[in-house]
Amino acid sequence: MNLLLKEIRHNPLLWLLVFVPVVFVTEKLKPEAHTLLFVLSVLAIVPLAAMLSHATESVAAKTGDAVGGLLNATLGNLTELVIALTALRAGQYMLVKASIAGAIVTNTLFMLGASFLLGGFKYHVQEYNRVSARLQAGLLFLATVALLIPSAISRADPVAGAAITQKLSVGLAVLLIVAYGLGMLFSLKTHRELFASAEHGEGGEAPWPIGLALATLAGVTLLVALVSEVFVESVQKAAEAFGMTPAFVGFIIVALVGGAAEMASAFSGARKNRLDLSVGIALGSASQIALFVAPVLVLVSYFIGPTPMDLQFWPGAVVMIFLGTLTACLVTNSGRSTWFVGVLVLMVYAIFAMTLYQLPPRSQ
Amino acid sequence: MNLLLKEIRHNPLLWLLVFVPVVFVTEKLKPEAHTLLFVLSVLAIVPLAAMLSHATESVAAKTGDAVGGLLNATLGNLTELVIALTALRAGQYMLVKASIAGAIVTNTLFMLGASFLLGGFKYHVQEYNRVSARLQAGLLFLATVALLIPSAISRADPVAGAAITQKLSVGLAVLLIVAYGLGMLFSLKTHRELFASAEHGEGGEAPWPIGLALATLAGVTLLVALVSEVFVESVQKAAEAFGMTPAFVGFIIVALVGGAAEMASAFSGARKNRLDLSVGIALGSASQIALFVAPVLVLVSYFIGPTPMDLQFWPGAVVMIFLGTLTACLVTNSGRSTWFVGVLVLMVYAIFAMTLYQLPPRSQ
Amino acid sequence: MNLLLKEIRHNPLLWLLVFVPVVFVTEKLKPEAHTLLFVLSVLAIVPLAAMLSHATESVAAKTGDAVGGLLNATLGNLTELVIALTALRAGQYMLVKASIAGAIVTNTLFMLGASFLLGGFKYHVQEYNRVSARLQAGLLFLATVALLIPSAISRADPVAGAAITQKLSVGLAVLLIVAYGLGMLFSLKTHRELFASAEHGEGGEAPWPIGLALATLAGVTLLVALVSEVFVESVQKAAEAFGMTPAFVGFIIVALVGGAAEMASAFSGARKNRLDLSVGIALGSASQIALFVAPVLVLVSYFIGPTPMDLQFWPGAVVMIFLGTLTACLVTNSGRSTWFVGVLVLMVYAIFAMTLYQLPPRSQ
Repeated sequence: MNLLLKEIRHNPLLWLLVFVPVVFVTEKLKPEAHTLLFVLSVLAIVPLAAMLSHATESVAAKTGDAVGGLLNATLGNLTELVIALTALRAGQYMLVKASIAGAIVTNTLFMLGASFLLGGFKYHVQEYNRVSARLQAGLLFLATVALLIPSAISRADPVAGAAITQKLSVGLAVLLIVAYGLGMLFSLKTHRELFASAEHGEGGEAPWPIGLALATLAGVTLLVALVSEVFVESVQKAAEAFGMTPAFVGFIIVALVGGAAEMASAFSGARKNRLDLSVGIALGSASQIALFVAPVLVLVSYFIGPTPMDLQFWPGAVVMIFLGTLTACLVTNSGRSTWFVGVLVLMVYAIFAMTLYQLPPRSQ
Repeated sequence: MNLLLKEIRHNPLLWLLVFVPVVFVTEKLKPEAHTLLFVLSVLAIVPLAAMLSHATESVAAKTGDAVGGLLNATLGNLTELVIALTALRAGQYMLVKASIAGAIVTNTLFMLGASFLLGGFKYHVQEYNRVSARLQAGLLFLATVALLIPSAISRADPVAGAAITQKLSVGLAVLLIVAYGLGMLFSLKTHRELFASAEHGEGGEAPWPIGLALATLAGVTLLVALVSEVFVESVQKAAEAFGMTPAFVGFIIVALVGGAAEMASAFSGARKNRLDLSVGIALGSASQIALFVAPVLVLVSYFIGPTPMDLQFWPGAVVMIFLGTLTACLVTNSGRSTWFVGVLVLMVYAIFAMTLYQLPPRSQ
Repeated sequence: MNLLLKEIRHNPLLWLLVFVPVVFVTEKLKPEAHTLLFVLSVLAIVPLAAMLSHATESVAAKTGDAVGGLLNATLGNLTELVIALTALRAGQYMLVKASIAGAIVTNTLFMLGASFLLGGFKYHVQEYNRVSARLQAGLLFLATVALLIPSAISRADPVAGAAITQKLSVGLAVLLIVAYGLGMLFSLKTHRELFASAEHGEGGEAPWPIGLALATLAGVTLLVALVSEVFVESVQKAAEAFGMTPAFVGFIIVALVGGAAEMASAFSGARKNRLDLSVGIALGSASQIALFVAPVLVLVSYFIGPTPMDLQFWPGAVVMIFLGTLTACLVTNSGRSTWFVGVLVLMVYAIFAMTLYQLPPRSQ
């Protein structure tokens, strides 16, 4: 605990933690001040993300980058899961689906691309474990196929599509969860040696003891989740004030803020030349949302939502997920990165963001 | 011949050969017992497939894995060709197309994935000749483009599509056969050294003499073809009794049973750490159906069918062929395999199978 | 200048240069003789292309293959830019778009495939710098995403699509030009060592001095542009006389003749075992048209066209651009080539050409 306080005293970024209680107080006192709540919740999420980043790195230092990355992805995506569950309970399936699709695309393109770019500014050429990257890209590709098929069948044959989407979605959800579990078995158990890092950076700050790190991970994740709820409630109204479309908000803003914690870790890894950590977090996080969060939401929707949710997405979102996954597959194939690879990946993301920003409100 | 009888006596699986005459007798006596005939024909195809497997391996032992694989694919696909020709003569173009699309997808995903999985259970990491795999994947990609374009044009512009599909299909058929011939020239003649196996397994059973092997290959292939015809006649009715949709039957069941012979060879190769043989059979078989069987059927349809057949497929089937080929291209890129790669490929297949199983009868 | 005349005297191909003035004179005297003008202009472009090829190689000999390739692509595409600007001024957006799409596909598939094939006839296996090829393929992939998204959104949601296409196109155009500029910065400045050639051929003819080479490059490019204009004016009428569809003319004929200069260089490089040069020209030229020529035309259309032009293409063209780019990505992944790789790539092109040839005039 002393270590934690010392850390906070020495890191000015963590002083922003003061906004965490401010958010909760403001929400109680002025629940209708959406734009204010929106700004406050973003300010509160940033330092929480930074703490999460340091805690995860401390655990990663003990367990190896790949496992650390997986752990980070799992905890980081609690945020997305909590957000989506809240929206699910309210029957806002559009928002749930937009935030799922957005989180996949944002993690695959923005988090990966920005990691390559930030790393590339500091190092001429960076290498990373391509076996690990390929596993994640493969899982992501599988999930993309699962999300693509119901939409493709529906477009090819609307009557048939409508009749089977709901039943098919449940089957696909079970399949994806099984694939996710087998992927964990593979990477953590039977073939864990393949996931060793290609090369380590120079180290960085002293890691926390494992107990403190784990406790911080858990506690801070909870706080992120609580603040994120305030954020989600306020973001739609705040977005209108700023003139953004709902599609852009769900797909880009929610995904960027929801993934802030993992991004802090991924970017910090890239700048320490530990690109394995960055790629592991970015692709691992994307495939976890696609293979675990999305199917869990489908299954849970039978119990908590007003009606069951299916896996059929807005066709434009399916195209974006498919192109994002294809980009990740092509880019991670070489196991090497430079700043320009980051630019290319970010540009694909920028094309999507630009399109969504100009989409009329009626769509998606 | 003695060697053959000895083989049969020592291998309990081959005792199932007794079902071959039983099928023919039952068909004569009770031609309307569809479910019985269905079960009997499957039981008869299994041992025939096993014999074909051993004969092919004997030839492969003399000629190198890649050539053996090609030979196997050529003979193995006689089954599919005979089935399709029968259906063609009856004007059942839906069934012909479903079985072509299904055979491509089943060979690309199920046969390849199950080979990786079975091999991966026995060996930690398996390596195979990626140059050979890339050639096959490249041929398959080419065929996919040829099957995709008529459908894509039709969807983009229905009037234009309908006007040109028939003429275009003949041109594409000729083009594909030329590409198939040039691919053989390349792999068997000008660059055959590229197709040498990456590494050989420990050997396996003693191979048959080449004469016996070739005679068995020819004779057993004929029997498989005859039994397959009974199978096809009975499968639709039997499927209804079991509650399966026509799409599922054409795409999955016909393709699985039709490819049983090659699967036995591919799986046996994988378990003997001769993954070159397995990958060669799986992708070679898929590309042979796409580049040779399908175009031959289009050309032959001008002579034996009631009306000519074109190359325009149900859009859902095109999407599945495209995704299957993309999976094969991405997966075979590394030349290495583990059990989880098999799981990923099989999962893509399972997604397709699940979708087709729930498709209403009206579709496809 | 003496050197230039000596060159012309010794190279029979260059004697065709006599057709350059003949074209201009014929155009003045018989402007309605379309078929004659078409044939004359093709005959005049061939020797100009040959000279351009030699001049570019002379510069490339001084600057390294990758830079030479880039230079060649930049000057070679002046032709396409001039053609497109003329059509734009006349408001012929269909022709502009068809020639853009056609130039991308023709460079990606025909120029690349024929280089592989011609090189493969002379050399058993050829190697080239795959880092450079991957950069070009990556840029091309990015441009494909940018061209695909407006069309995909429009198909997914026609009302939304129509509303945003124009504004979106301007944004995408700016984005693509920025990406193109950053790509130049990367390949010519920060990471130029990655673009060194994998291996050099035996040399070839003596290079021209740099001054003469640069002057020839500039002058001949201008002549190509002037002759190309005559060619474009005559090609549509001549095509009708030969019975070709407008889609085929715009996509295939204009692109083939417009790219003749670069093709001469690319093919000559392939036959001298300098495949880096060939791949650099083919993919560099395709990505330059997608990332530079097309966006410039969109922006310029606000000043010189009757109405602004957008980036939404005929869906069939988008499918072809996407499949062409995917082919290039898959094929250049290994950095090795044989004649059969060339056959595969050319076959994909042949499928497209065959489809466009049979498309009814109404389409595209």
